[in-house]
Amino acid sequence: MELDELMQLMKKYDMKSPNTQKEFEDVFELNSMFQIPISGSGMKNYLKPEHAQGIILNFKKLLEMNDGKLPLACAQIGLAFRDEISVKNKLLRVREFVLAEIEHFCYPDDKSHPKFSQVSDTKLWLFPVCKQTEGGRPVFIEIGEAVNTGMVGSETLGYYMAQTQRFLMNIGMEPRRVRFRQHPSNKMAHYATDCWDAEVLTSFGWVECAGCADRGTYDLSQHSKMTGRDLSFERIMNTPSEKEVLTLTINKKKLRESFGEDSQELIEELNDLSPEEMQKMNEILDQKDGEYTINGMKITREMIPKLEKEKKISSVERVTPCVIEPSFGIGRIFYCLLEHTFRIRDGNEFRPYFALPASVAPFKVAVLPLFRNVIVDNFVQKLVDELIEDDVSVWIDKSKKSIGRRYLKMDELSVPLCVTIDEETLNSSPPTVSLRDRDSTEQVRLPISEVLSTVKELAKGKSTWKCILQKYPIFSCKG
Amino acid sequence: MELDELMQLMKKYDMKSPNTQKEFEDVFELNSMFQIPISGSGMKNYLKPEHAQGIILNFKKLLEMNDGKLPLACAQIGLAFRDEISVKNKLLRVREFVLAEIEHFCYPDDKSHPKFSQVSDTKLWLFPVCKQTEGGRPVFIEIGEAVNTGMVGSETLGYYMAQTQRFLMNIGMEPRRVRFRQHPSNKMAHYATDCWDAEVLTSFGWVECAGCADRGTYDLSQHSKMTGRDLSFERIMNTPSEKEVLTLTINKKKLRESFGEDSQELIEELNDLSPEEMQKMNEILDQKDGEYTINGMKITREMIPKLEKEKKISSVERVTPCVIEPSFGIGRIFYCLLEHTFRIRDGNEFRPYFALPASVAPFKVAVLPLFRNVIVDNFVQKLVDELIEDDVSVWIDKSKKSIGRRYLKMDELSVPLCVTIDEETLNSSPPTVSLRDRDSTEQVRLPISEVLSTVKELAKGKSTWKCILQKYPIFSCKG
Repeated sequence: MELDELMQLMKKYDMKSPNTQKEFEDVFELNSMFQIPISGSGMKNYLKPEHAQGIILNFKKLLEMNDGKLPLACAQIGLAFRDEISVKNKLLRVREFVLAEIEHFCYPDDKSHPKFSQVSDTKLWLFPVCKQTEGGRPVFIEIGEAVNTGMVGSETLGYYMAQTQRFLMNIGMEPRRVRFRQHPSNKMAHYATDCWDAEVLTSFGWVECAGCADRGTYDLSQHSKMTGRDLSFERIMNTPSEKEVLTLTINKKKLRESFGEDSQELIEELNDLSPEEMQKMNEILDQKDGEYTINGMKITREMIPKLEKEKKISSVERVTPCVIEPSFGIGRIFYCLLEHTFRIRDGNEFRPYFALPASVAPFKVAVLPLFRNVIVDNFVQKLVDELIEDDVSVWIDKSKKSIGRRYLKMDELSVPLCVTIDEETLNSSPPTVSLRDRDSTEQVRLPISEVLSTVKELAKGKSTWKCILQKYPIFSCKG
Repeated sequence: MELDELMQLMKKYDMKSPNTQKEFEDVFELNSMFQIPISGSGMKNYLKPEHAQGIILNFKKLLEMNDGKLPLACAQIGLAFRDEISVKNKLLRVREFVLAEIEHFCYPDDKSHPKFSQVSDTKLWLFPVCKQTEGGRPVFIEIGEAVNTGMVGSETLGYYMAQTQRFLMNIGMEPRRVRFRQHPSNKMAHYATDCWDAEVLTSFGWVECAGCADRGTYDLSQHSKMTGRDLSFERIMNTPSEKEVLTLTINKKKLRESFGEDSQELIEELNDLSPEEMQKMNEILDQKDGEYTINGMKITREMIPKLEKEKKISSVERVTPCVIEPSFGIGRIFYCLLEHTFRIRDGNEFRPYFALPASVAPFKVAVLPLFRNVIVDNFVQKLVDELIEDDVSVWIDKSKKSIGRRYLKMDELSVPLCVTIDEETLNSSPPTVSLRDRDSTEQVRLPISEVLSTVKELAKGKSTWKCILQKYPIFSCKG
């Protein structure tokens, strides 16, 4: 529908805002890409709404780097911009956002994934189109089964869905509040052949945080078509195949006599004709006095004596790869994560904390000396230097505030572990410290020399607090 | 000068382009910030040209997080946008660029830095204003001496200059092609009190890649002034001080009689007067029939019976912190780094490589099996899994190309280390592999179990190839 048609309809039915009863403004077209005016530039310039095309246009370079072999994948993270009509729901709908994308290139006739077997037993909540339309509920199913039964389009798509799920769980989201919803084919983006959104349940309802889309060969084909630069490549076939090729016989002398200098260009045009056009021209020329016109030049039978079909053996074929794209809205994921990990201790609203796993908490550990003198300061400095040297982010609180108040602050900052240096540290041999777990508030006592490795294991997800408890005895439960 | 004045001058002297002899276009004002049209927004919106203000506006939050203590510093990295008239010199002048900034807040009367002693003997090439104006050359000087003699404004500024130098050296720049040039005070940005650019010599001349600026209290003062929200804070003084305070005696009843409801607002205005304005008003009211007007309301002596000077003892004082800002143009640094590290082996232009240190090379190590069978594949997979598990980026080239051609490719990709798995690996016990250094092309033989720790030490800058050579014997020099 054109803009003015829409406008007329709105006037005809006297449409008004249901909230304010005011008349609507004039209808206008919205380009969700921001156009930016660059001084002295005659071109239209836009801020990018996604990274995909920057990667896809470089496909040939990536293929060369990968020794001409598929599959290959390329990832990018950075800002993207979209002109949203309404910015709302806190961090969920904004105009400038951090977008992370992977573009995975594979053969269109082979979307298997070499590591699929490693994830095939991952269970996901899937909400396929069929369940959506019949008013059903999502199903909890192994991704291997979902791919086998055709619910999910391919191994590669399924692999990335399973990895997306694993990522969201690892950073601390609640499993029961994450699901994958399939796009109905009529609502799917124009480029996609199958697409699943990772949705996360929040106080605003289900929020789309990531998407896994099979973009098919759409992007590469379109770029090839519009730029005239072929982005397909030659694949060596296991068994050479026989192909039918059409060849025009061109009487160049006749063409020169009729069109002079223009004949060279005409010959190129003739050779560029598609098989269908060649057939069509041939049929016309077969008719009595048949004439076929190219660029205003009339072509007759004597100029093109015949069109022949030949059979050729070829051991290569041209392939346009298929692109499978997992993409992640980092700001949305972060907002949802804050909702999923927000806790209040013992129902006391003055004791809030975020139960962020150590792997994503901004500070992995806090070092809190219970009192201060030169010896304690040396212990603190040595431990902090060790942690920083090994890239473990550390918060130091040497204030005179009570240890309870300092734990409260570390909880608010979501620091998963607190090391306390106390009287005992000075008296024990080897010197020991207490290590406190944010979520349980349990503490163990361990040699100061084992703090670094313990914190690193927890931060890398290679150990859990439960394992720590088996290794070191509980020290106390205060704070 | 106004735009039309400039235009008239250009016409008067018939100014034309020296290159094309064409007339200039009309003069126009250029805002180096990009304005972006947001649909339905009446406001003017801009893309940010720097990160500084986003951090500085949050100073109070940062101070709270740091328990009200200075110094504190906050860093940010991300895209910034500037409308450059001419985009040129490859990656050096672009409109969208990655900018990394640190905002360091400190007391304006104490710009010492707690870690300055750790860097004070770092030698830098400094090009102070005095040397620039007298046509002199840069001097090679310890930063400690430069701060002591007042050449560099403060310890904190000097600390960041030394760290900037260390950073540029660590990523692989040539020491003799890096210098710090001081901004002349007449060309300094309006906000800066001292500013040094880190300049790097390239084929385009000296290029500004980073800057260390003392922005003084300018930003926080301006924000306080424009928003009416005070961004200064109270500092507890070691010794309480006596201060002279001016106090107006206001006859509120008289004000109400004259101005009714407006009197409340007037009282607030009176209390907000600066000491100078209070003095001025008092002098006027002292005159016969003296009247002082605020917002159209005429004030007389009987409304303000007196202005008194009082002495007050105070143990706190309001302080507006000073901001010292190191900022880094990441794209420029990267371009300069490519120029500084580009090498051609043995004068053979077909053997180019980038001598990027392992710490910044995108791939730290390549794994190259000389031939393939199940046992070799297992060795490769085990080593690669180990490396990935420990976040060491690895390139695998299982192609059938000769080892020489594979080394060439790894050189082009700037991979600093290559591990070769060969016949010997299968026959030695424990299994050994060869490790090749990109820059020297030297190789050593070491147990496969020691590859991970060796690569990690080199990538972290904790070891050098020289140290490796002392630990393991040279294996061969081929490739």
